[in-house]
Amino acid sequence: MAFFLLSQPREFVVELANAFLAYRDRIHPCRECGNLTEEEVCSVCSDPLRDRKTICVVETAEDCLSIEQAGIYEGLYHVLNGRVSPLDNEDLPRETLERLKSRVKALGVKEVILATNPRIEGDLTAFALVDELKTLPVIVSRLSYGLPVGGSIGFADRVTLHVALESRAPIKGKE
Amino acid sequence: MAFFLLSQPREFVVELANAFLAYRDRIHPCRECGNLTEEEVCSVCSDPLRDRKTICVVETAEDCLSIEQAGIYEGLYHVLNGRVSPLDNEDLPRETLERLKSRVKALGVKEVILATNPRIEGDLTAFALVDELKTLPVIVSRLSYGLPVGGSIGFADRVTLHVALESRAPIKGKE
Repeated sequence: MAFFLLSQPREFVVELANAFLAYRDRIHPCRECGNLTEEEVCSVCSDPLRDRKTICVVETAEDCLSIEQAGIYEGLYHVLNGRVSPLDNEDLPRETLERLKSRVKALGVKEVILATNPRIEGDLTAFALVDELKTLPVIVSRLSYGLPVGGSIGFADRVTLHVALESRAPIKGKE
Repeated sequence: MAFFLLSQPREFVVELANAFLAYRDRIHPCRECGNLTEEEVCSVCSDPLRDRKTICVVETAEDCLSIEQAGIYEGLYHVLNGRVSPLDNEDLPRETLERLKSRVKALGVKEVILATNPRIEGDLTAFALVDELKTLPVIVSRLSYGLPVGGSIGFADRVTLHVALESRAPIKGKE
């Protein structure tokens, strides 16, 4: 990057710097869900076709993008912009939690899907969220753990294999 | 490997070659489960502490090792030494299937856990096994698919995210 900038004409770098700044100023969190947007409210929250009874909670706006790309989810999002990580002295911002709870109440949400990262901090964050939501009449679920599709048993790490065995799913009953 | 062999004294290479041969001659499939062993019957099948009412079906003996290393499984194994793969013109050896069915009957097995690889061929193999076992009074289950533990949402491929969302698990009821 450093060498590239030096190899370019000065005007190009001015233009690039201005583009960065303009981008930085134009994009901000959605008032509703905290996802990134150029508008007041993001394209997901303002889409009348999205299912408003389901909210998927993610740690960062990048995670929304990953889930959108999977192309299966039709509900709304809630971006925490934080996580519970005692080692890094991080906790969930109070304001985000309150906004999540008031959205659940206001929209009459039926299910909150926790899509926090599949690691210790994500698990702690999920537990904290279950605790926050425990007084509300809403189902809370969690993305499944298991073997990643397209891999192989031999390449799965032992913790993933452990979880995949524990949460195995019946596909044929006893008859 | 080639350069290493040339750099060694001749006697060393003779010894290595003999060790390879001795190893090749000593190890063979277990009579019961098809896992690799030096004895008639492998260490898992002959262990009186293993749960004989559960059989975990894997494609190769290497997969047994992976699952053993996860350290959670206490039942027996059944190594297919094959898979269903129409593109490669591969099918399950009839003998292995018959042996699996007779083991299920003889031991009074309660659950067969399919641990075929999480990909197309593994899925086809699993379907073929369900079909084979459909007349027997045994539960058939499958390792769960989902996010690998320790990863992150951002690094999960879209098919895995799709499956993780579809097979999400409730962790709090509606109250």
